[in-house]
Amino acid sequence: RLRFRKGKGFAIPTLMKNFAMLVCAASLAAFPLSAQEEKKVFPAPGEIVAAAKADEWVAIAPSDLLVMDLAADSKGKPRRVIIQLMPAPFSQGWVANIRKLAAAKFWDGTSVNRVQDNYVVQWGDATEKKALPEGLAVVPESGYITPIQRMVVNHPDGQGSYTYTLPPLTGQSRKDAYGQSAFSAGWPVSYLIESGKSEALYPTHCYGMVGVGRNLSPDTGTGAELYTVIGHAPRHLDRNIALVGRVIEGIEHLSSLPRGTGALGFYESEAERTPIASVRIGNGAKDVPAFEYLSTESTSFAAYADARANRRDAFFIRPAGGADICNIPVPVRRKAK
Amino acid sequence: RLRFRKGKGFAIPTLMKNFAMLVCAASLAAFPLSAQEEKKVFPAPGEIVAAAKADEWVAIAPSDLLVMDLAADSKGKPRRVIIQLMPAPFSQGWVANIRKLAAAKFWDGTSVNRVQDNYVVQWGDATEKKALPEGLAVVPESGYITPIQRMVVNHPDGQGSYTYTLPPLTGQSRKDAYGQSAFSAGWPVSYLIESGKSEALYPTHCYGMVGVGRNLSPDTGTGAELYTVIGHAPRHLDRNIALVGRVIEGIEHLSSLPRGTGALGFYESEAERTPIASVRIGNGAKDVPAFEYLSTESTSFAAYADARANRRDAFFIRPAGGADICNIPVPVRRKAK
Repeated sequence: RLRFRKGKGFAIPTLMKNFAMLVCAASLAAFPLSAQEEKKVFPAPGEIVAAAKADEWVAIAPSDLLVMDLAADSKGKPRRVIIQLMPAPFSQGWVANIRKLAAAKFWDGTSVNRVQDNYVVQWGDATEKKALPEGLAVVPESGYITPIQRMVVNHPDGQGSYTYTLPPLTGQSRKDAYGQSAFSAGWPVSYLIESGKSEALYPTHCYGMVGVGRNLSPDTGTGAELYTVIGHAPRHLDRNIALVGRVIEGIEHLSSLPRGTGALGFYESEAERTPIASVRIGNGAKDVPAFEYLSTESTSFAAYADARANRRDAFFIRPAGGADICNIPVPVRRKAK
Repeated sequence: RLRFRKGKGFAIPTLMKNFAMLVCAASLAAFPLSAQEEKKVFPAPGEIVAAAKADEWVAIAPSDLLVMDLAADSKGKPRRVIIQLMPAPFSQGWVANIRKLAAAKFWDGTSVNRVQDNYVVQWGDATEKKALPEGLAVVPESGYITPIQRMVVNHPDGQGSYTYTLPPLTGQSRKDAYGQSAFSAGWPVSYLIESGKSEALYPTHCYGMVGVGRNLSPDTGTGAELYTVIGHAPRHLDRNIALVGRVIEGIEHLSSLPRGTGALGFYESEAERTPIASVRIGNGAKDVPAFEYLSTESTSFAAYADARANRRDAFFIRPAGGADICNIPVPVRRKAK
C-alpha cells in the first residue's frame, strides 16, 4: 500500500508494510476504487510537494549551513545535525557571530547540556569558562525585530504604481492567537502591528527553529549558546530572544536525547552530556549534501499550505479550516544528484 | 540562585547550579535589588501555580488513570507512563473500550511501534493478530464531537435567569487559527461553530494528548491502538480522531525514544520496538501516586493562563499578548502526602 513517509518537514510517498492502524495515513492506493468514484479524492500535502516543479525549489547555499557533528552514538553511528542559518535581513548580528564562532572552532569539545521535554535542547560550553573568539558583536535588542520597508514603484507603462516590500512577504497573512503571520523568503515570520499597521517582522519560534541563549535583559547573547525547539511552538519567546536558523536534517539526534533531570532540563552530571565533535559552516565541512527548500512564493507552496489547513485527503473526514504558521513547516529536502 | 524546574506541564521553584545562559529562566532572586525597585517584577506562571490554594486543586480518581509500564531501560530503570483518561461527556465510548482492554490485559506483551519526530508515539499490537476482548463498542464518528447543552435556570430570588452549560466551560474563549477554544473541567477543548453559534465541543490535540489510531473512515478505532502527541499540536487531527486522555507523568519515556526509520516513523524491526510489560487502570496497579490538577475554574488558573499569554517576569522584555490553548498546559502534579 502507498503510504507517506515523513522527511524533513515534509512527506514523500513510499511503500510501507501493512500496519492497519495509522494516525495520519493518507493513501490513494488503499482507498477502494468504488469509494474513489463516489468521492473526489484530494492530494495530501506531501503529494503536492512531491509534484512541485523543479524550478519551484530554491537552492540553499552551503555557506548558509551550520553543520554540527555530535559524538557517535553508543552503537558507533554518526550523528550529524544540519542547521540552515537565517538570511538577511533577519538576526544578522548574531548570524555573523555564529560564523566567527564556527571559524574559531569554538564548539569543538563542547556539549549538549540541556534537554527539556516539550521545550528545547540547548548546547554550548557547559563550563562557561571557554574563551570566546575576539570581535563578536554585542547585538542590541532592536535586532529581534526587522522593520518592514515599503517602496512605492511606478509601473513602467506609467499606469499607476505598486508597493514593493522588504523583507518579501508571501500570500495572505494568517491570524492566530499571537497576531498575524506569513512566510518571508522561506521562513515563518510574524507581524509587529502598531496603530493598526504592520511595521515590522520577527521570526517565529516553530519546531526546529534555532535560537540564542542569553542572560537577563539587556543581554542578548553572543550566539555561543544555542538551542532548538523540540515541542509545541513556544511563541512567548518571539521578540524576546534571537532566532538564527532552523534544523533541516538530523533533529532526531537532539529531540530523542534523554531528558535532563536538573532544573530546566539541564543534565546534572558531565556523563549525561552529549559531546560535540565539531561545528563548521557548510562549505568548510566534509560530505555535506546540497539542500533546497520549496519557494514560499511558488504555486505549489500555496497549494501545500492550503492543504495543510484543509486536509481533504482520504484519511480526513473534516478539514480544520485553518492552520497556525508552525503547522505549515516549509518543505526542505536534499537536492537530487 | 532560584530558578524554575519543569514538572509535568508546570514549573516549580528549585535551586539550580549556576548556568549563565538560559532560554527561559525567570528569577526573582537573581534579579538585582536595585532593578527590582525600578521595575515591578511580575510572578512567572510557575510561581502562580505554586502559590495556588489547596482548595483550587482537584483530585484525579485513581480509577481515571491508565498506568503503562514499559520494559525497564538498558540500565534497568523502570519506565512508567501515567495517562489521565478523559471524563464524561467526552469520548466515553472509546474510554469504556480502553477500560475493557486494560481489564483483559490486552496490552501486556505488546509494544511501542512507531515514533515519528514532531508528531506521535504509537503503541499496541504490532502483529495485528492478537484477539481483542469481547464486548468492545463500535463508536460512531459522531462521538468525536460533544454537543453543548444549554439550560436556562431561574434565579432562586426570581430576579431573572442565567444559562448553565454542559459540558462546563471556563473563562473567555480564545481565538486562534483553528477557531475558538477554552477549558472544560480541566481539559483543552475547541468549539464547533455553526451558523455563528457554538453548538458543540471537541477535545484539542495538544502535546501529550492521547488518541485512538484508526483505519479509513467510517472506522473510528477500538482504542486498542493508542498514540500520544510529541510535537507541535497537530490540530488538523481534531474532529478526525478520538482523543481519550493525556499523559500526566513519564512522557519522556515515549518522547525520547529513537525515531523509527520506516514510513510514518514505524520501526522496521522487532528489535527496535519497546516492549510494554503491562497496562492497568490506576486502582488496579501497584504504587500509583495520587494526582491533582489545578481547577480551570479557579482564580489561580485564570492568573496562570493570563501570565502564559503575557509573560512579564524578569526574563521577558515583550509579552506576547496572547497564547494558543496548547501553550497553556493545565497544571497537573503529584498530590503532597
